[in-house]
Amino acid sequence: MNYKVLKFGGSSLETLEKMKHVASKIIKEAQSGFNLVVVVSAMGKSTNQLIALAKEASSNPNKRELDALLSTGEQVSISLLSMMLQDDGYPAIGLSGFQAKIKTSGLHTNNRIDDIDVSLIQKHSEEGKIVVVAGFQGINDQGDITTLGRGGSDTTAIALAAKLGCHCDIYTDVTGIYGVDPRLVPQAKQLETISVDEMKEMAFLGAKVMEPRSIDIAQHYGVIVRVAHAHIESQGTLILKEDMMEHRPITGCSVIEKIVLVNIQHVPASMSLIAHLFVTLANEGINIDMISQTQSSDGFVTLAFTASSDDLDNLEHVLRVLTQDQPQAIIHVDKHVSKVSVVGSGMRSQSGVAARLFQLFADHHIAYKLITTSEISISYTMSKDHTLQAVQLIAQEFGL
Amino acid sequence: MNYKVLKFGGSSLETLEKMKHVASKIIKEAQSGFNLVVVVSAMGKSTNQLIALAKEASSNPNKRELDALLSTGEQVSISLLSMMLQDDGYPAIGLSGFQAKIKTSGLHTNNRIDDIDVSLIQKHSEEGKIVVVAGFQGINDQGDITTLGRGGSDTTAIALAAKLGCHCDIYTDVTGIYGVDPRLVPQAKQLETISVDEMKEMAFLGAKVMEPRSIDIAQHYGVIVRVAHAHIESQGTLILKEDMMEHRPITGCSVIEKIVLVNIQHVPASMSLIAHLFVTLANEGINIDMISQTQSSDGFVTLAFTASSDDLDNLEHVLRVLTQDQPQAIIHVDKHVSKVSVVGSGMRSQSGVAARLFQLFADHHIAYKLITTSEISISYTMSKDHTLQAVQLIAQEFGL
Repeated sequence: MNYKVLKFGGSSLETLEKMKHVASKIIKEAQSGFNLVVVVSAMGKSTNQLIALAKEASSNPNKRELDALLSTGEQVSISLLSMMLQDDGYPAIGLSGFQAKIKTSGLHTNNRIDDIDVSLIQKHSEEGKIVVVAGFQGINDQGDITTLGRGGSDTTAIALAAKLGCHCDIYTDVTGIYGVDPRLVPQAKQLETISVDEMKEMAFLGAKVMEPRSIDIAQHYGVIVRVAHAHIESQGTLILKEDMMEHRPITGCSVIEKIVLVNIQHVPASMSLIAHLFVTLANEGINIDMISQTQSSDGFVTLAFTASSDDLDNLEHVLRVLTQDQPQAIIHVDKHVSKVSVVGSGMRSQSGVAARLFQLFADHHIAYKLITTSEISISYTMSKDHTLQAVQLIAQEFGL
Repeated sequence: MNYKVLKFGGSSLETLEKMKHVASKIIKEAQSGFNLVVVVSAMGKSTNQLIALAKEASSNPNKRELDALLSTGEQVSISLLSMMLQDDGYPAIGLSGFQAKIKTSGLHTNNRIDDIDVSLIQKHSEEGKIVVVAGFQGINDQGDITTLGRGGSDTTAIALAAKLGCHCDIYTDVTGIYGVDPRLVPQAKQLETISVDEMKEMAFLGAKVMEPRSIDIAQHYGVIVRVAHAHIESQGTLILKEDMMEHRPITGCSVIEKIVLVNIQHVPASMSLIAHLFVTLANEGINIDMISQTQSSDGFVTLAFTASSDDLDNLEHVLRVLTQDQPQAIIHVDKHVSKVSVVGSGMRSQSGVAARLFQLFADHHIAYKLITTSEISISYTMSKDHTLQAVQLIAQEFGL
């Protein structure tokens, strides 16, 4: 069988009119001879509306029940889309997570897919039907309805493509992946291809097109993913395995605005004290990033790290408690910072990217505060005042 | 175990505020030591809203997909109500139709319950949880989500009570069953008890409290049902088996306004012709009721019957086609009629009810057109002008 998985996100299904357009897009694809499995999200903002309803019903909604509630969003989508496909004369069948045998485990509202028994999907597909599967949801060993958390529908689609051994088209509200945000650099170029490693770095680093976990599955099972716009004709961007690609030194540049930079001076150079600080932050669910530590000759160290500005209140509270016994410590939280990251698989084999960046920033007097690097990326924390200029300079320097 | 099934209809769950009141009512009942299984409908008018959405999506919504769509309504109710019960400190768990193992067969949008495997419900209940089950829905042999049609949630509740061998409280938007509509007879009395046979006649005859099919199940399995108001304290009305009751000659009087009376004169007295007429009407889905036939000496008959005014357009069309070859036939459709029915198990053993009614109507010059009788009821078709007076006279005569 010549399978293909298509995934349509919530914004592509916001209204019945948009959904009808999606139906005609699916039919066009079916006419090309593919056996289609279509994965859909809940319509528009309906998942957020259901979460709001749960919060109105309960101060602390039980997560098992919340999962059952949220799963209705995609169930509505599969039913309506299947009706539309049938109206257009195409046999179609909607399957919710449990019907599609998407087996999950983990914590409610944040399950992972363990396996999918695709025999029923294959049976319907062999009978000539377009199979419309509810994304974001599954069923666990106890027979409870589960959901997969952020990016869950992408995960469903790519996991299905992995099981069916086929490509996966992710239709969303962007025409493809850009090396740099077109809102920051208007002349930014859309990428024809990106490596799965680069895509992962980009995803982690703030390009919101796909969640890292779904890209992980694509990488692990070698699924080729295409990202394209649901309602605008475009070739989109292909996410390929490393060995299918030409190397560019730099593929993209991304910005995270919602961070804060924490600086703590005069911390005693005690490993247990510092470990205690980071363990406490982790236990409080505060993810920190870009840690730097410098030691002075007087037995004190200066710690610096970044965290999400969403965690700011909790972070400041925890830091105050932690430093109660250290009156000499000086805490400074800088909220006026951004993180600019440069990503490219080519960094592995081509040296000099970092050097070009340092020179660029020096030439234009752009001060940076913290730097971290991975095998294929370099990230700089800098004042928000410089972010846009930095991104535009990087885009120009590397032709993004 | 000391099980009890409680059922809450859509109007009792119209808002989160009403649902919270329902939650506290359930908890009060749980504190009386019952193992509660709670069956809920979709909130307020949400089923109608989903039907409207389906009709907007498709001119002729596929019924399998429609069932999956509609089932989300009760799924939302079970999740939110379970959250609320847990908020109030009571362990609770929501089960959709497939999770509660409600096995159905038949046509989509109008399935019947074949069986319920209550082992999981019992397991949760034995663990001390309030089990909240989605009414109106189940799953068929093919693993498709199904719905049960009109009165489906009552059917779910009574079927569960039958399997668990317990009573069933149906909480709705009336304080109980009245012998006669209080809007017509303000001093009407609420019945403390009604026999299941009488309730069935009342249901068929237009008292909209419960669907006949759910009462059938109660009768077949000997389930004692109480009907009461969800938000107003009342004893409600107990629906009992015949042998538990004192006999009254008349229990109730109901009115159906939405009927038309069809009169066809000068029909040839041919059995095959008349059979063809009724078979054709049945095939067109037009239910007819109260058939009367009178023969004159000239070889023609006069047919009279009633039908729902909802079917009027289709009915008139079919009658025109059917009488094309019978130019002498005169069709008259009277839209200004009502059907007044008098119901009472006591009619079986106590004669004279019919005689009292004929005398009553004669004394007050109330003309009736068609009469039909069952073992425990008599129905009269009469001009809408006389309906109210007739009902009030009957209520007075029999002390309803």
